[in-house]
Amino acid sequence: MLPNLTPDVALAERLFATLRERSFDGTGITREAFGPGERMAHALMAETGAALGLEQRVDPVGNLYLTLPGADRAAKRVLLGSHLDSVVSGGNYDGAAGVLAGLAALAGMRRAGYVPARDITVMAIRAEEAGAWFPTSYPGSRGALGAMTPEELQVRRLDTGRTLAEHMREEGFDPDFVARGERGIDPAGIAAFLEVHIEQGPVLEAEGVPVGIVTGIPGSRRLRAARVIGEWNHSGATPRKYRKDAAIALADLAVALDEAWCRLDALGQAMVCTFCVLATPPEAGFTKIPGEAVFQLDVRSVNLHACDALFEVLYDKVAEIEARRGVRFELGAETGSRASPMDAGVQAALRQAAAALGISCHVMASGGGHDAAAFAQAGIPTGMLFVRNQNGSHNPKEGMRMEDFAQASAIAQRFAAEYAA
Amino acid sequence: MLPNLTPDVALAERLFATLRERSFDGTGITREAFGPGERMAHALMAETGAALGLEQRVDPVGNLYLTLPGADRAAKRVLLGSHLDSVVSGGNYDGAAGVLAGLAALAGMRRAGYVPARDITVMAIRAEEAGAWFPTSYPGSRGALGAMTPEELQVRRLDTGRTLAEHMREEGFDPDFVARGERGIDPAGIAAFLEVHIEQGPVLEAEGVPVGIVTGIPGSRRLRAARVIGEWNHSGATPRKYRKDAAIALADLAVALDEAWCRLDALGQAMVCTFCVLATPPEAGFTKIPGEAVFQLDVRSVNLHACDALFEVLYDKVAEIEARRGVRFELGAETGSRASPMDAGVQAALRQAAAALGISCHVMASGGGHDAAAFAQAGIPTGMLFVRNQNGSHNPKEGMRMEDFAQASAIAQRFAAEYAA
Repeated sequence: MLPNLTPDVALAERLFATLRERSFDGTGITREAFGPGERMAHALMAETGAALGLEQRVDPVGNLYLTLPGADRAAKRVLLGSHLDSVVSGGNYDGAAGVLAGLAALAGMRRAGYVPARDITVMAIRAEEAGAWFPTSYPGSRGALGAMTPEELQVRRLDTGRTLAEHMREEGFDPDFVARGERGIDPAGIAAFLEVHIEQGPVLEAEGVPVGIVTGIPGSRRLRAARVIGEWNHSGATPRKYRKDAAIALADLAVALDEAWCRLDALGQAMVCTFCVLATPPEAGFTKIPGEAVFQLDVRSVNLHACDALFEVLYDKVAEIEARRGVRFELGAETGSRASPMDAGVQAALRQAAAALGISCHVMASGGGHDAAAFAQAGIPTGMLFVRNQNGSHNPKEGMRMEDFAQASAIAQRFAAEYAA
Repeated sequence: MLPNLTPDVALAERLFATLRERSFDGTGITREAFGPGERMAHALMAETGAALGLEQRVDPVGNLYLTLPGADRAAKRVLLGSHLDSVVSGGNYDGAAGVLAGLAALAGMRRAGYVPARDITVMAIRAEEAGAWFPTSYPGSRGALGAMTPEELQVRRLDTGRTLAEHMREEGFDPDFVARGERGIDPAGIAAFLEVHIEQGPVLEAEGVPVGIVTGIPGSRRLRAARVIGEWNHSGATPRKYRKDAAIALADLAVALDEAWCRLDALGQAMVCTFCVLATPPEAGFTKIPGEAVFQLDVRSVNLHACDALFEVLYDKVAEIEARRGVRFELGAETGSRASPMDAGVQAALRQAAAALGISCHVMASGGGHDAAAFAQAGIPTGMLFVRNQNGSHNPKEGMRMEDFAQASAIAQRFAAEYAA
């Protein structure tokens, strides 16, 4: 029988305020991965953990572990975690909400004098937003779980020109652990990983529900540097049959893929297809037929077959447009990731905790990628809770109501207590 | 009976070489309107005119008139003209070919000791490419013909921030003539205006014909600063039904207009429709749904009803896309021009001259706009000859064979002699 636990939401509220104060850049929130903003946030969490009497440890990647010791120290632990970094001029909640939900849960347990059967650990993960600068993803969680290669540490930040390893070393960490085959935490010692995160999308707001239980994190197929090569010509003097218009060829492709997505969407396939960039180059201008156009394509689904289906349409359409319009597509390198379904047992436990607390939840797929994917890929029973939020994320207007955060924290706390029991 | 006249093509060849030498910018040819490059070219023509013993005059806009006096000085004159300026890093022939064809014709008449019945004047027009910098068109020819307003002289060059009037004054000309209601040349004194110009398109090359006789210069309807406003959102976390994707909305519009053009083209309608710019803004990037997209649209036809038909499709489609995708189109100011049919009598005289010389010609509409449009709009019997050229124009690779130029010059010379007879 669980005692009447509640999360210390007031503590989280104070921490949100301090984080905002210390990382407001004049426009939004900047907490650069392996940089000053992230360093500040980790220091604040370490200080808070010490005040709560939590055990603390930092692994070679720089991830921080704050542990409420359980009765059986040798038993597999429950992990509650997310990241503390942000994009440039982003919001205060993306990432931080998950760490603070964990701290609020543990602080509430401490306040109630509650000792769980197993250790419960809040993990503040490094560099989830690293992808904004480095051509890599999730070095914090993947590094902790031993899923990084030494090559990945040599990728360079575009603005500084220095490697990920150099940036890690500058922050006082030890990138050589990867080459030594070490990791930050043993997956075999983790009973479950739960990540609380703002939704970043409009679904919970539109549905009028405070919390989402995530069924899976989508995999992706991506083109980040694709282009169409046509021929620059005079827009007045070049009749239709002599044109090789790169812009209209790209518009053709975009509309065809959007129609294909629309058909799959109507069939209930959970996926997205976005031309994040679709553009004639700067030299385009009046009286010129565009001889070049560039694009970035982001296709995601929890069902990778859906991504594959869209790429089949892409390949067919590219060949057809090339033949019809006399242009050439250069798709460039494709990147992507596998889908990560969330653990059925964890999802059930989350639904049960929410029901016991009388909190209504929406069951939904994640849209974005998250550290939780790395835990799921490592074979750890993994779950995610989404908190309803306003105005998306990665922008200064990103919003979240504290009452919604409190609901998610309460579910996370109850889940952790029950899972650790 | 005409003597056996031939144009002095060797003179033109030397002048082309000198122009190239003096205006090569390392990449292509730059002869900036009302700037150093154009000044150099006008000085070279004045010098050549003096050497040929032609009368010369410069009007308040800066246009240069080089006249071979006819027997009857009071009779209406025949004008052969084009421009000497170029776009930045363009080619050597766009514009200059027309002035040099005229000079070659007059030099050939001088060489033969031929005195025409009326004056024949080569007009080197200012700033035909002004539109590349100033939001205005044809200030040289329209200024000469009294078709400019004082307001047009106050438009500012984007890079310098100075007005057209200031740039004209810097080059030693008198922009105040417009306010005084003066003009450079009296339309009532012009029997005919003929402009020789490179085609700028691929038609003559594809048809294997050296010279084109132009039936008309298209009118246009243009959007130079149109945009689509949607909503920036996370590309992973925003399901289809919540999106307001500006880029895909613009692609929709572009494809719809291209399809409408394709139908009109199949019906034989001579027109073009070009999205010269079609682009997400610089802040677009990975994991973002574009919240904005910009475009420039250039629709032209010798039959303005065809332009109107395409704009009807545009308005219908904009409303449909706005309703379907939750975006908003801001079309901005529309600019445009009337179509300018070439004079039937001039066209007939050109066909006759070509036939007499045994030169095969292709009868065709112009694609681009030209100074000749201003003369046609002023009610002057106007014609154009196109010279076959390679690699379009407005680029360093712009090509033209001297034997094709020689054929066009011969037709122009014979036309002028016969029209002035």
